[in-house]
Amino acid sequence: MDREIADLQTKLEDAFAAATALYRERGFQRRIGFGRKPALINVDLANAWTRPGYPFTCEGIDDRIIPATRQLIDACRENGHPVVYTTVCYQNPDPDDPRTDMGLWHYKIPIEIADQKNEDIWAIDSRIAPIDGEQVMIKKRASAFHGTYLAGYLRAAGVDTILVTGVTASACVRATVTDGLAEGFRPIAVREAIGDRIPGATEWNLFDIDAKFGDVEPLEACLAYLNSVNFRND
Amino acid sequence: MDREIADLQTKLEDAFAAATALYRERGFQRRIGFGRKPALINVDLANAWTRPGYPFTCEGIDDRIIPATRQLIDACRENGHPVVYTTVCYQNPDPDDPRTDMGLWHYKIPIEIADQKNEDIWAIDSRIAPIDGEQVMIKKRASAFHGTYLAGYLRAAGVDTILVTGVTASACVRATVTDGLAEGFRPIAVREAIGDRIPGATEWNLFDIDAKFGDVEPLEACLAYLNSVNFRND
Amino acid sequence: MDREIADLQTKLEDAFAAATALYRERGFQRRIGFGRKPALINVDLANAWTRPGYPFTCEGIDDRIIPATRQLIDACRENGHPVVYTTVCYQNPDPDDPRTDMGLWHYKIPIEIADQKNEDIWAIDSRIAPIDGEQVMIKKRASAFHGTYLAGYLRAAGVDTILVTGVTASACVRATVTDGLAEGFRPIAVREAIGDRIPGATEWNLFDIDAKFGDVEPLEACLAYLNSVNFRND
Amino acid sequence: MDREIADLQTKLEDAFAAATALYRERGFQRRIGFGRKPALINVDLANAWTRPGYPFTCEGIDDRIIPATRQLIDACRENGHPVVYTTVCYQNPDPDDPRTDMGLWHYKIPIEIADQKNEDIWAIDSRIAPIDGEQVMIKKRASAFHGTYLAGYLRAAGVDTILVTGVTASACVRATVTDGLAEGFRPIAVREAIGDRIPGATEWNLFDIDAKFGDVEPLEACLAYLNSVNFRND
Repeated sequence: MDREIADLQTKLEDAFAAATALYRERGFQRRIGFGRKPALINVDLANAWTRPGYPFTCEGIDDRIIPATRQLIDACRENGHPVVYTTVCYQNPDPDDPRTDMGLWHYKIPIEIADQKNEDIWAIDSRIAPIDGEQVMIKKRASAFHGTYLAGYLRAAGVDTILVTGVTASACVRATVTDGLAEGFRPIAVREAIGDRIPGATEWNLFDIDAKFGDVEPLEACLAYLNSVNFRND
Repeated sequence: MDREIADLQTKLEDAFAAATALYRERGFQRRIGFGRKPALINVDLANAWTRPGYPFTCEGIDDRIIPATRQLIDACRENGHPVVYTTVCYQNPDPDDPRTDMGLWHYKIPIEIADQKNEDIWAIDSRIAPIDGEQVMIKKRASAFHGTYLAGYLRAAGVDTILVTGVTASACVRATVTDGLAEGFRPIAVREAIGDRIPGATEWNLFDIDAKFGDVEPLEACLAYLNSVNFRND
Repeated sequence: MDREIADLQTKLEDAFAAATALYRERGFQRRIGFGRKPALINVDLANAWTRPGYPFTCEGIDDRIIPATRQLIDACRENGHPVVYTTVCYQNPDPDDPRTDMGLWHYKIPIEIADQKNEDIWAIDSRIAPIDGEQVMIKKRASAFHGTYLAGYLRAAGVDTILVTGVTASACVRATVTDGLAEGFRPIAVREAIGDRIPGATEWNLFDIDAKFGDVEPLEACLAYLNSVNFRND
Repeated sequence: MDREIADLQTKLEDAFAAATALYRERGFQRRIGFGRKPALINVDLANAWTRPGYPFTCEGIDDRIIPATRQLIDACRENGHPVVYTTVCYQNPDPDDPRTDMGLWHYKIPIEIADQKNEDIWAIDSRIAPIDGEQVMIKKRASAFHGTYLAGYLRAAGVDTILVTGVTASACVRATVTDGLAEGFRPIAVREAIGDRIPGATEWNLFDIDAKFGDVEPLEACLAYLNSVNFRND
């Protein structure tokens, strides 16, 4: 299995290199850059995604994503930048009830487990627990912007740049980055803080994101940026 | 005071009659009608709006709006129609914190009282308490559609008609009706179930709504309609 | 007729005075103020609204709204502020075709006249014609934000304040102001540059707006503001 | 090069097979199915994407995507289903002007070529030209739903299912499918009618879509479905 994953990575890297040549020639893969007022958006780093034993459990959480996200959160708190956490849960998770707030998503994925009554499932991972003054947004769909007040919230706060972490690269993170750009924000995907649950998905989604929707940046660059701007002293 | 209010009503009715003549001649004030699948949207019938002593306390709640809304809710429950309740509260109601989820609204109205930590303030009025399977949507702005999952929720459920109740006519009810039409639903404002806190505001807002955005209908017609369609047997 | 309108105005002013007392006591009618980067949004100042003979023709256009809007546009052009014009038209204005892009609005108002093929109807009034670099947004519904790219456009441009002009106070202007606040912008309704087609509607809608959604400001204050900030030198 | 592409495809298929095993075990990759009222959404099948010589030119257009899309359009026209075409262009494509309607997207991709004044660039490919009564939506961002009236349009028409074609799989098609589900529609990605400009991107994006957001279905199944439902006889 590990051998196969390594082979896939190699093959994907070859494909990305070839695609990069075409993209550069055509004028894609430009840099959007960091702006002047960042916010941190932590996508679905809640127990059903970060802890073992759930259908949504992801890879790379303990050793990579949680530690990276903690560093980002700390840097935001030190500098007064807004921190937003998203999670997913439903008031009516009965797939047989047409009044369910799952909409049609349970026809594709097992979101019926995310019962709002069972907070253990959808609570933000305690290792990166929100503190007073930060926002926890319950969303019903993939994008952190869809069906939430995120865009208006960020605009009212004067934010122009969103650093995005979390899971999964192939769904909620990607949709958040795509919408973030569309709503007028500079999306930065923090490479070490993003993951998925199937091999290759993080790679191909970050590749697509970096080509077209936002910059994929290493953690160190993001931390340096967060420490270089101060939210209140504008 | 009562005399002045009666005078205002008379004068408004005269103005509405004159405007109606012009509107009819020009082709406004048409009927949108009831569709095939209704949902009931109860706007901000939460304690800070329905109980005495708050900045948001409204008129006509006990004798008119709550009883009418109860009848509508009962009819929905009997026939399986979705019922949605909206309320307003904030995780960070500190007006001096640029990270507040009040956005910019506290610069206009006293929403800083709606602290999410103080559920008494924003809980749905116990006389029309939601039951299991119904939706309570926390919104941050006026419209029930803005920054919420309401539009996608209704579309996924196959709803084509929204009956709107609640307060206030001059803000959240009106914005909900306006957006409801824009999102592709037939808005019906239930006359007896809508109110405000200043004289005249209910009248002029329902007049504008009926002229351009949705039908203002009496409670009896709405109840008859709700009992004439069945959500599941479609 | 003029006497009746004057009576209505007086009665409304009395009602507004009484309501203002209650609003002030309760903490409404606060000032949102001008921000740092304005844009001008001219709502539906297109021929079918500004020229005689259409169902949508409004009052006060020639002597008040057009001259005021011209001054605002000039001030924006001198200072580099973005100018946006909205209008309404439909690719398929056949009310009997379920595929019409009128949605359900033709069930309320005579929008079927706004045929995209007939540009005379929906072109921006030539007295305030857009110039190169400015935006003309075709919208399908009341709000300039609904079903358009306006919010993302303004955010990407760093705008935090919207000055709103146009018609009608009771529909598109009001919906634009309501949504503008919700999207995180400071809405300023320019009193002299807003109108309607029925007596009283401008007054009661501007009253509601000023109480809850944006500041109603005189033209002079808006011009002074536009001349005091420069879009590019930020 | 062809050998490398074939190798990549093989490796991706292996990865998809492994991922499918995990997804099935976890309850992903469910079928959303066809609903009762479809619409066809043709994403960006405009000259700059379908004809040679542009930065946006895609692969597989002439032999696969255009013929498949034509068949779908014909089936829709025969059965009265709504057909929507999206394209992208800008009124102010000057990347140095902060008032550009490109928002921030030109910081990532070469959209500055899509000048609204140069209709040849953004006109729908003449081989699948729209006819009277169909909708052409100019969008500014990736998703057909973002900054457009598409969601309200489809809801008002009673549509519950969207068949999606066009380019690119890694941007506008994917974003449209993701948003379509979120807005309450059943998204169906028509395999033969979707493409991209870099090897692998169509495959990995359709894989992600099918796992989580909509069903990827072959052309034949989609044609059979379109012919089995009639828009008007509902």
